[in-house]
Amino acid sequence: MKKRSLETCFSPALYETERHKGSIVVIIDILRATSAICSAFANGVRTIIPVETVAEARDYKNKGYLVAAERDGIVLDFADFGNSPFNFTRDKIEGKTVVYSTTNGTGIIKLAVSADFVVIGSFLNISALSAWILKKEQDVVLFCAGWKNRFNLEDSVCAGAYAEKLLDSGKFDTICDSTKAALDLWGLASSDLNHYIDKAAHRSRLKANGLDDCIEFCLTPDYTDKIPVIKNGVLVDNIL
Amino acid sequence: MKKRSLETCFSPALYETERHKGSIVVIIDILRATSAICSAFANGVRTIIPVETVAEARDYKNKGYLVAAERDGIVLDFADFGNSPFNFTRDKIEGKTVVYSTTNGTGIIKLAVSADFVVIGSFLNISALSAWILKKEQDVVLFCAGWKNRFNLEDSVCAGAYAEKLLDSGKFDTICDSTKAALDLWGLASSDLNHYIDKAAHRSRLKANGLDDCIEFCLTPDYTDKIPVIKNGVLVDNIL
Repeated sequence: MKKRSLETCFSPALYETERHKGSIVVIIDILRATSAICSAFANGVRTIIPVETVAEARDYKNKGYLVAAERDGIVLDFADFGNSPFNFTRDKIEGKTVVYSTTNGTGIIKLAVSADFVVIGSFLNISALSAWILKKEQDVVLFCAGWKNRFNLEDSVCAGAYAEKLLDSGKFDTICDSTKAALDLWGLASSDLNHYIDKAAHRSRLKANGLDDCIEFCLTPDYTDKIPVIKNGVLVDNIL
Repeated sequence: MKKRSLETCFSPALYETERHKGSIVVIIDILRATSAICSAFANGVRTIIPVETVAEARDYKNKGYLVAAERDGIVLDFADFGNSPFNFTRDKIEGKTVVYSTTNGTGIIKLAVSADFVVIGSFLNISALSAWILKKEQDVVLFCAGWKNRFNLEDSVCAGAYAEKLLDSGKFDTICDSTKAALDLWGLASSDLNHYIDKAAHRSRLKANGLDDCIEFCLTPDYTDKIPVIKNGVLVDNIL
């Protein structure tokens, strides 16, 4: 049987919309957007509306929505809260719709609209999401958000962790150099992930803004079995 | 003293022309363009005129120039020879001007024109070029050609080897995640480079076309002390 193809894309600037049509696209932006989204679903959020621009986020706020929005790690003044997974607590969001806009993560969700499925990946839901992917039949693209179109270490390492799980199943094959590099970086990082991620530029950025308290949490595997997936432009729990 | 900045760019799609203005840009496309260029200067070529399009290359041929040109590893029908470093032999090129056009390598030379220096890097000239860079004062960008805008393993590993030499001097600092990843990949590859590069997609492409005979040569450190550099749009040996 022909194996499914696995590719990794290290930056939105490298995403090939036409070629990835019909694939499952796993968005990875672990510090902090996709970890926050997984966390929100674990805490019972009903839907998340990803929006790209600050103006859109403000419009939703004016209409009475709960809004999570940040740029460069800083909460926007009109927003209810920012981008830390610790913000999305059950008392604030259970059963609600949250509008969400971040520096990198939410923009790329829109890039990937030609895919068959767009799902949210992080360490927090890695086993559940990998098992879900294995039950499907499409090719897979691990799509790292990076930082302002640049390659970043933390998303690449997480892509490597997903690649390992998918390739270990025997159902996938890859001729993609990015996937091979991600696997090798994950191989170096996996025994002490927190220590490895310490050298990532974005960790320093978060630290400088006092926003690094959630990093260890974001590196926790299998905190939840939620699989946030885009349906009609909004994020819902896959079982809905 | 403030240290010089070192960055790595994994693909032309990730190059930031404005931000890298005034830097030394090291073009790395080791299988095979930049290895062939280093080899050509080692064999006494006088100048190399890099051209981007097939039409330009053909125009030069019609004017009587010696033309090396390939696309996807295949020599163009009107060209004198292709992209293997083994083509640029002393009897063919000594003292001459060669027009050169390849799939990835020559295009990106044009992207980097806003830099202070654009130099050609490969394993073949790594010590000489690193020593030359250390005598300058500019920041440095290691610019991997990749493959059709995608990340590739062989150029990233070579960038890691350059990064190690430059950082070991104590004159450089980096907050660039791509550089850190390149260093880690080089760390994994360096003890058996030929074996590591074996998994690169481009090696398979070359093999499929019977063009992989030069790979071991392209991975040879310090075959030459030539430093091909762009001056007025053409490549010359730096000592000229």
